[in-house]
Amino acid sequence: MDRYSIAIDTLGGDNGSRYMVMGIADAMKQANDFDVILTGHEDELKTYINEFNCDKTRITIIDSSEEITCHDSPVEAIRSKKKSSMVLALNEVKEGRAKACISSGNSGALLAGGQFIVGRAKGVKRTPLAPLIPNKFSSSLLIDCGANVDAKPEYLVQFAKMGSVYMENIEGIKNPKVAIINIGAEDEKGNELVKETIPLLRECKDINFIGSIEARDIPEGKADVLVCDAFVGNVILKFYEGIGKTFISEISDTLKKSFFTMIGGAIVKKPLKKTFKKYMADNKGGAPLLGLKGLVVKIHGNCKNNEVSSAIMQCRSFIINEVNSKIVSALEAEK
Amino acid sequence: MDRYSIAIDTLGGDNGSRYMVMGIADAMKQANDFDVILTGHEDELKTYINEFNCDKTRITIIDSSEEITCHDSPVEAIRSKKKSSMVLALNEVKEGRAKACISSGNSGALLAGGQFIVGRAKGVKRTPLAPLIPNKFSSSLLIDCGANVDAKPEYLVQFAKMGSVYMENIEGIKNPKVAIINIGAEDEKGNELVKETIPLLRECKDINFIGSIEARDIPEGKADVLVCDAFVGNVILKFYEGIGKTFISEISDTLKKSFFTMIGGAIVKKPLKKTFKKYMADNKGGAPLLGLKGLVVKIHGNCKNNEVSSAIMQCRSFIINEVNSKIVSALEAEK
Repeated sequence: MDRYSIAIDTLGGDNGSRYMVMGIADAMKQANDFDVILTGHEDELKTYINEFNCDKTRITIIDSSEEITCHDSPVEAIRSKKKSSMVLALNEVKEGRAKACISSGNSGALLAGGQFIVGRAKGVKRTPLAPLIPNKFSSSLLIDCGANVDAKPEYLVQFAKMGSVYMENIEGIKNPKVAIINIGAEDEKGNELVKETIPLLRECKDINFIGSIEARDIPEGKADVLVCDAFVGNVILKFYEGIGKTFISEISDTLKKSFFTMIGGAIVKKPLKKTFKKYMADNKGGAPLLGLKGLVVKIHGNCKNNEVSSAIMQCRSFIINEVNSKIVSALEAEK
Repeated sequence: MDRYSIAIDTLGGDNGSRYMVMGIADAMKQANDFDVILTGHEDELKTYINEFNCDKTRITIIDSSEEITCHDSPVEAIRSKKKSSMVLALNEVKEGRAKACISSGNSGALLAGGQFIVGRAKGVKRTPLAPLIPNKFSSSLLIDCGANVDAKPEYLVQFAKMGSVYMENIEGIKNPKVAIINIGAEDEKGNELVKETIPLLRECKDINFIGSIEARDIPEGKADVLVCDAFVGNVILKFYEGIGKTFISEISDTLKKSFFTMIGGAIVKKPLKKTFKKYMADNKGGAPLLGLKGLVVKIHGNCKNNEVSSAIMQCRSFIINEVNSKIVSALEAEK
């Protein structure tokens, strides 16, 4: 395979571009078959590139001081801030100079930019954002957490197929179990959307559809691909984050409560931390926006170097495994 | 206030009617202003009533050996199993002999029975099931987790008002904070249902509407009444149960991992258990089905005596505080 480039928007995150470059440096050490195109403050980037001793022959910088912030209205920002680091990075994918683009900026703007700038791949009706969420054993793909809050059955069917291709090729899960998130196990349960989608999923011969999954079984890892509309997906994703944070702070507070709990806490803190580490998804890359002509990956606003480097490796895996053309084939097969 | 009765379906739970009677005995000791009507196996009930030394003058038994099981189709079961313990208990409310009814049986059947047998109160468009879900400080009412999976804006507005009345009168929260569950904080975020509902809620002068709440803020207790359609409500409720169970089993497994963690675990186990006890809602009664001509309370299928007695005290509080007529007034005020 020829060399390829990954574009990275280095602005828009909470922790500044230094962590971005730290992560990029790390990924560049892990693999040598790609180059990077960085959009952001050129001077600052040059300083960090020197600091982390990156191979400069593999780096192109596109200077941009314009930033899309979290306060910007997504569609408006994509249209008006043509020189922003995010739009410039997306443009690299559109123009074919990069195969993927990573950003920690405004999620809504990135979703809009993916659609309007990069554009949908052939046969794709809607482009879902599909983060991996941790479970007891590994992770499941929660598809969709993007913009399709009022979805149609045919979108969910496509999401099921895209998610299946993704998990098979990126996470290496053979014949991934696909389930639709529902409020009961039986096919006649659910809202209109779910009830209309289930028979369509049952007809799909090319995915391993196991039926409905109740939300209580998500942490138990009973399915690899969790299909839902983006409203439900967002609620689950955010609730997971919230409850995880609350529980961990509750544990931590409890262990500090008295002299005795501090002694016990000193012993169990490290093993507990290790246990809960798998519920922190920063080693799993970012959330891919699937179904585009290239790949767009959203990483957390508060991401650090780990998440940046794993997102780059995720893009690499996506490109090397030609996931986009496999998605297009999977969607064509349905007709 | 005159004496009143509470009807209790003693079949349909996983743990048998002995726990039901144990809980009933406990509640009868806590307050003396009510009687109970028990539906179920008469002989069995008599044995337990003796065992727990209940005041027999306060108990009426309606013998029933027919049971609605979790495998029955809800509407069908309510229609065909006229002599089942659940239908008989609901009938007591319909006929005015009881003011409330408690059951641990088939949720769908109880929801259907509430609507078809007890009937909606004046002005009520849909009857929501509204469990309390625990948060860091206390609990929030999650309204709706019932049958209204494809809701309309005007239903959600009524849910907001009913929930507000409930939390003020039953949980004693003055001017409860009402929020709509959404995927962003701004009013323009959300699916069609949420976007159409927000302006209607902003117009309601009689509730303390604080806007949208993201699911991540639910465990932080940022709102007292959480308004959503029943699909979203069910997903949150089940996910909460699932993640709680998974995290607690993860902690427990970690503490058993080695000799050292067992020593540390022995010290911190009790305080941790105490911390997480507040996330187990069995001392908060059951989930009320609101907006009926009486009160119907769903308790867990695996409930034990604690949940039964607290559900009875919850019914008592509902009746004494005349919550039903306050709900009707609140809904009338909107016109």
